[in-house]
Amino acid sequence: MVRIHPAVPKMTKNKKNKPLKELPLGFIDRNEKELLVRDFIISNIKKVMVKYGFQYLETPSFEYTDSIGKFLPDKDRPDAGVFSFQDEKNWLSLRYDLTAPLARYVAKNYLEIPKPFKRYQLGTVWRNEKPGPGRFREFLQFDADFVCTKSLQADAELCILVSEILENCGLNKKDYIIKISSRKITEQIFKQIQIDNNEQKLTVLRALDKLDRLGWDGVKQLLGDGRKDKSGDFTKGANLSTKNINLIEKELKNKLSETEDLKEILKIFNDYNFNNFEVDPSVIRGLEYYTGPIFEVNLKFDVKNNKGQVVQFGSIGGGGRYDNLVKNFGDYDAPATGISIGLDRLVYALMQKKDFKIKLTKPIVICIFDKNSMKEYINLQNILRSSGISTEIYPGEGKLKKQMEYANKIKSPAVILYGENEIKTGKPTLRNLISGNEKSIKISELVNEIKKII
Amino acid sequence: MVRIHPAVPKMTKNKKNKPLKELPLGFIDRNEKELLVRDFIISNIKKVMVKYGFQYLETPSFEYTDSIGKFLPDKDRPDAGVFSFQDEKNWLSLRYDLTAPLARYVAKNYLEIPKPFKRYQLGTVWRNEKPGPGRFREFLQFDADFVCTKSLQADAELCILVSEILENCGLNKKDYIIKISSRKITEQIFKQIQIDNNEQKLTVLRALDKLDRLGWDGVKQLLGDGRKDKSGDFTKGANLSTKNINLIEKELKNKLSETEDLKEILKIFNDYNFNNFEVDPSVIRGLEYYTGPIFEVNLKFDVKNNKGQVVQFGSIGGGGRYDNLVKNFGDYDAPATGISIGLDRLVYALMQKKDFKIKLTKPIVICIFDKNSMKEYINLQNILRSSGISTEIYPGEGKLKKQMEYANKIKSPAVILYGENEIKTGKPTLRNLISGNEKSIKISELVNEIKKII
Repeated sequence: MVRIHPAVPKMTKNKKNKPLKELPLGFIDRNEKELLVRDFIISNIKKVMVKYGFQYLETPSFEYTDSIGKFLPDKDRPDAGVFSFQDEKNWLSLRYDLTAPLARYVAKNYLEIPKPFKRYQLGTVWRNEKPGPGRFREFLQFDADFVCTKSLQADAELCILVSEILENCGLNKKDYIIKISSRKITEQIFKQIQIDNNEQKLTVLRALDKLDRLGWDGVKQLLGDGRKDKSGDFTKGANLSTKNINLIEKELKNKLSETEDLKEILKIFNDYNFNNFEVDPSVIRGLEYYTGPIFEVNLKFDVKNNKGQVVQFGSIGGGGRYDNLVKNFGDYDAPATGISIGLDRLVYALMQKKDFKIKLTKPIVICIFDKNSMKEYINLQNILRSSGISTEIYPGEGKLKKQMEYANKIKSPAVILYGENEIKTGKPTLRNLISGNEKSIKISELVNEIKKII
Repeated sequence: MVRIHPAVPKMTKNKKNKPLKELPLGFIDRNEKELLVRDFIISNIKKVMVKYGFQYLETPSFEYTDSIGKFLPDKDRPDAGVFSFQDEKNWLSLRYDLTAPLARYVAKNYLEIPKPFKRYQLGTVWRNEKPGPGRFREFLQFDADFVCTKSLQADAELCILVSEILENCGLNKKDYIIKISSRKITEQIFKQIQIDNNEQKLTVLRALDKLDRLGWDGVKQLLGDGRKDKSGDFTKGANLSTKNINLIEKELKNKLSETEDLKEILKIFNDYNFNNFEVDPSVIRGLEYYTGPIFEVNLKFDVKNNKGQVVQFGSIGGGGRYDNLVKNFGDYDAPATGISIGLDRLVYALMQKKDFKIKLTKPIVICIFDKNSMKEYINLQNILRSSGISTEIYPGEGKLKKQMEYANKIKSPAVILYGENEIKTGKPTLRNLISGNEKSIKISELVNEIKKII
């Protein structure tokens, strides 16, 4: 028998000893409008992926903890950041990204896959982090990766395909920028300041990754003795000397520093006539596994938070080259590069673009006057539905007043009144709920009349 | 700080002390073909849902354990069947269906939602059950529900909309049947044999629900002293007398027994000219919360298991009326009815239908002769892609032989050879990988030529 956890759960009840109606922190319900925007983005992603020759793949939500656990951002707690469960013998975790599961997939199916292997995936990922305003513990990601290739053509094309997806979603060149850098830049700096300890390198990278949020003042504390945040939590520093900290700052502010890999990517961008990018050595990305070029996708238009304040929205995605991830599984060498987009963040931003509109289709409501006439209502409903018109017979049991309230509440464009007299004459009444106009219409003309107003 | 589990995970490594490449039992990777079939089904579902006037909604993967925990099939272990973990103070669980979260949503948003409230959802659900062949611990469900209505028009329409979805997916009337029954039938029997204890009722219902799998012999053991399964696990019985067990069998085999609710649904089916159903009192559904009509969706065509044997495939979905689920949260009375389809099972079956075909689009591969000609390759690629043709420049670093192997491996329809001479004359060579034919073609005619063969 599979056991999930040792103790019987402590129930979460309110004062009346009833279950809570609330959601746990960091999780939300999503409404129709955002789901339709998300579907719109996803359909654009799929079209671009087919056009670019990527294969569609899906790995499951759960993996063995060890298969994905080693690459987590928080090195001090091997289990932190993920949702983990003890199975019969082993620990399982919900994936926290789509890259680690891809590495496991490639290691498992290495002999069968084409080489190179280009795949895309859409899937929920989970982070068990301290939830805060706008910080969720569950979100939907899109990932595209090239595996088994060192060609920088691949890295360049990842930036170009994301760019095409964003423009197909209605953004123009002014709305976004792809920032690129390379881990080789920080490697050069590490050489200069003589750091060769991986742990310390990682501490420095994680400090630099917070530049967006903390600015140079905060980052310099993290590179030095450490930093206490507003809540009082203290983060240990990398203990670098002031001289070395200043050197890092100077090098990363020098936008001209370019490594061989970046030079080659810039050449390919040029061949593609792609210029919506910026080389920015201060782009770091927090994950340990990157080995070469890294990318970050940033939106440039104003996005407001739920208090209506314009916020620094930051990146909606990014990625980079990770040549050693598959090798960790033991048998095969499979250099790879990938990019991912956080779809919920993109949905949130896109819904705020002034010129972005999505249409919600709401049904025509056929009112019920008499349950014995149900067959007549069904007949009307069939006629409208088979013409592709969203229609419903009022689904409840209320009187006409309630039915009208219902139709207004769901923002129905019109109701059909089909009482005894109307049935006798074969002419239902169509009431337009936007204009308030009513019209008596022959059944044969009903479809055309409705199509005028929806 | 959020803690997930008290102990540090025991790592799962193979002999070389590397992470396992395998997936935990009950989880699988899904390939492109099944994902495309699934997308096809989902797009049909969405079209029907809009036509029928349902609202699109998404609740998160996690809920407080107590909000969904009470309605689980396995009464003896309140935590069994679900993946649960301890958050800061409370227990959270991954949803095991989409109905319990809907009830929570309605309780939480009761004052804002339209009444009746019609919503549909597509989402992954998780069951932490003993995995077995073909039994997964993660699957994708589609649910449609009417909340805040007692109208049996709603129950009838759920059967009709599922029927429309299946037919839009390519099934015909002979391929499936909707079985209907009512919990009121079993309630009548409970009265007859004088059971009024809810626990015992549930034990009887769960025994009857296994009829498909165990037949009457097995079910009668479960209604009596209990039953030991093949693995040696013993399930306690309901301890009914032989007389009462025989009475139950007789009543449920009597297909004529019809309750008032079923009679009304049959009348509505008749008004809709819907006849692809069967009243079957032996349809039970294992969940505790049903209160009225219940439905089961069964496929009737042959489905084979992975050994090629035709299996009794059983139901791909079902549902029923649950008038008291929202009331459990305390404040509001919201009678409801819903139906759900297991999409993975439907995909599995649909892929075996002889006349069901789905087309995989594979890219044309432009071979690399010389990296210095990359700009020329990119130019060709742009021409093809902007004409909607899936195309890629070979994404690796191998020689021509490797490139051809790659193109064959991914089942590319054709490769383009664009070497020094071809570039000079402006006439790339198109090699059809199905026929083996080669042809020298002007760039301006390339798109048309390729469209002939894809």
